[in-house]
Amino acid sequence: MKIGILGYGTVASGLVDIIDNNKDKRDISIEGILVRDVSKHAHRKHAEVLTSDIEDIFNKDVDVIVELLGGLHPSYEYLKRALENKINVVTANKDMLAEFGGELVSIAKENGVCIKFEASVGGGIPVLKPLIESLEGNEIDSISAILNGTTNFILSKMYDENLSYDEALKQAQELGFAEANPESDVMGYDAGRKLSILSTLSFKKRIYWKDFYLEGINNIEPKDIEYAKQLGCKIKLVGRSKINNGKVNGYVRPVLVGNDDIISKIDNEFNIIVVNGDFLGEVSFVGKGAGKDATGSAVYADVLDIYDHRLNNVDAFIKEKVDVDKVVSHECKALLRFKKPQKDKIISVLKDKLIDSKVIAQDDELAVVVDAPSECAINDSIKFIKDNNYCEDSSKILKLS
Amino acid sequence: MKIGILGYGTVASGLVDIIDNNKDKRDISIEGILVRDVSKHAHRKHAEVLTSDIEDIFNKDVDVIVELLGGLHPSYEYLKRALENKINVVTANKDMLAEFGGELVSIAKENGVCIKFEASVGGGIPVLKPLIESLEGNEIDSISAILNGTTNFILSKMYDENLSYDEALKQAQELGFAEANPESDVMGYDAGRKLSILSTLSFKKRIYWKDFYLEGINNIEPKDIEYAKQLGCKIKLVGRSKINNGKVNGYVRPVLVGNDDIISKIDNEFNIIVVNGDFLGEVSFVGKGAGKDATGSAVYADVLDIYDHRLNNVDAFIKEKVDVDKVVSHECKALLRFKKPQKDKIISVLKDKLIDSKVIAQDDELAVVVDAPSECAINDSIKFIKDNNYCEDSSKILKLS
Repeated sequence: MKIGILGYGTVASGLVDIIDNNKDKRDISIEGILVRDVSKHAHRKHAEVLTSDIEDIFNKDVDVIVELLGGLHPSYEYLKRALENKINVVTANKDMLAEFGGELVSIAKENGVCIKFEASVGGGIPVLKPLIESLEGNEIDSISAILNGTTNFILSKMYDENLSYDEALKQAQELGFAEANPESDVMGYDAGRKLSILSTLSFKKRIYWKDFYLEGINNIEPKDIEYAKQLGCKIKLVGRSKINNGKVNGYVRPVLVGNDDIISKIDNEFNIIVVNGDFLGEVSFVGKGAGKDATGSAVYADVLDIYDHRLNNVDAFIKEKVDVDKVVSHECKALLRFKKPQKDKIISVLKDKLIDSKVIAQDDELAVVVDAPSECAINDSIKFIKDNNYCEDSSKILKLS
Repeated sequence: MKIGILGYGTVASGLVDIIDNNKDKRDISIEGILVRDVSKHAHRKHAEVLTSDIEDIFNKDVDVIVELLGGLHPSYEYLKRALENKINVVTANKDMLAEFGGELVSIAKENGVCIKFEASVGGGIPVLKPLIESLEGNEIDSISAILNGTTNFILSKMYDENLSYDEALKQAQELGFAEANPESDVMGYDAGRKLSILSTLSFKKRIYWKDFYLEGINNIEPKDIEYAKQLGCKIKLVGRSKINNGKVNGYVRPVLVGNDDIISKIDNEFNIIVVNGDFLGEVSFVGKGAGKDATGSAVYADVLDIYDHRLNNVDAFIKEKVDVDKVVSHECKALLRFKKPQKDKIISVLKDKLIDSKVIAQDDELAVVVDAPSECAINDSIKFIKDNNYCEDSSKILKLS
């Protein structure tokens, strides 16, 4: 089978290694690798097929184009053209799928080819294929997941070594776990895109990432971690989405996770995806959410699906779009912090408006764990407290439930 | 597609529910259900296709036979005949696969049909398909797993409620988690069979379950659990197999698992399978290891693979058999207990023969955590202690490493 690879970054070089390593079992010929500057890669494996001209790839009559450029453009144009030319496509590009997934799947179907994207969620963890094929008989009603290795690494460092957010981010950048501009990771955008792909496949409705409530980890303070420890919890950036009577509720946000929850055990660059099916119950997939070789392994599995003619496309991306509810509408717990508080007044408001509240610290600030009928009830209480100037500032971290 | 089902126990009734539930999406017609006594099932769904005569199933020209009878005979004969008649086969029967897997796969290949068995390991957890298809590019070098829900339930009860083994077993039996004759579960035979299937698929060599070192949980005492807690561990019945330079080392036995290990988080009827691939790193699959609906979901996924013409067979079962080394040959830790001990003499033997040893209790018995160059070194020390009558009795629990 003949393939062309767009891009020669870390994941592409992982893929090339696996293809070479399995040469005797699977005859996959790399016909072209698209890079911006050929001379920069001249010392690398398969340098003889490097090109900076996309036409060279299309002229090679390849069976599969593997897109590992990232970004929306020109990846989208290249893949659209590939599918229209009846070339199968493998991509790890979650940004593009989150945006153009529906259109690309439609074009693939019209042309009798397929688009595969296992590596777009959870790095090397095999999760999309099990979700689509092995859980097909199940109605999936919820997903809880750690989908971003960078933020999980930062939060693990803050927890284990009592670092500030800035210190932990700096370490992550030095070790190559975070990019120079970490916005997409730390603000939850990356996890949101992955959660939208998982939710679309699981609920069989088109769900866009910008419709989730998204909150980053950049405001998490050592003090929050300290309280979390005191409560027998960790703080994790969790993507959660739920469907109930056709309505989807979803977020990516830092939440308290109890130490007895398997999600709390997933540290550093590891990811976890927990889905709940009506027949199967809860099933979890855990592994490295990023990295050259792990992600390369997932891309390679997609390539083999095409090699073995397992060519099914996923219809969910072309289903109707649903609105996503951003606040938690069921009973929930949260940690609230109030700076410069009028303690008695705040406690009285919380006692009045919520189900239960328990003060866990009252030195220079007031920290309270509340139990509320919904997140709105918590927000209303905080608004009332602020409107009455009972504190100078406040923060809220929900508990995962 | 037309199917025949052999057996109408819990898993079969889960399967029937899923088929009925998904009728509008997948046109699967149940043509026959083989039971011993038709009258006993006359009140159930699809009673009109019940039969006690296997010929009725073979006469129906079915595309798939789903075997959920369990046991070796006559399941083996039925499936052999089905494959020879070019009928695809789905089975959840790990006993039969462990014994006759190679022969059945060969017959399937000769006849251009396939045999699928996702539900034989890990109940509803999708693990065999990801292992075979999604991890194909990886060399897998180790597996660690909790593969038996009954024993995990018993050990969880012992840990959480300080019950004795007998009390916990009784509870498990009352709740339907353990059978009247629990031997196959509690002695590790069931987990051993599943580990042999996983190891065969992962290492691509034929591995038989009786070649593993197998030790049950029936000798675990509340005192062992108490020590485990003291050491920040749980005791879990773990199946572990490793390949190194073509040599396989493997066991199913109760081991100490540190609280920071994800395996320690898997309680009650849940199972976990952790595999380590050279490209992917460690990936884990977690879910319910048994139960009507969960296992039915896995059988249904196999049926859909045939429906969608994903018909690949697994060659590993017809590969050469390898010998399995039963003792841990690398550095390891263990908890040793000595009854009626001559304490100083025992401690001096351990200090002499092993790397390190730490006394953790010395009331009516001596309990020591040792660090040893290999399990043989530990066994030799114990033998020396016993030969010299330095104690009346002893026990050993390895730590998972």
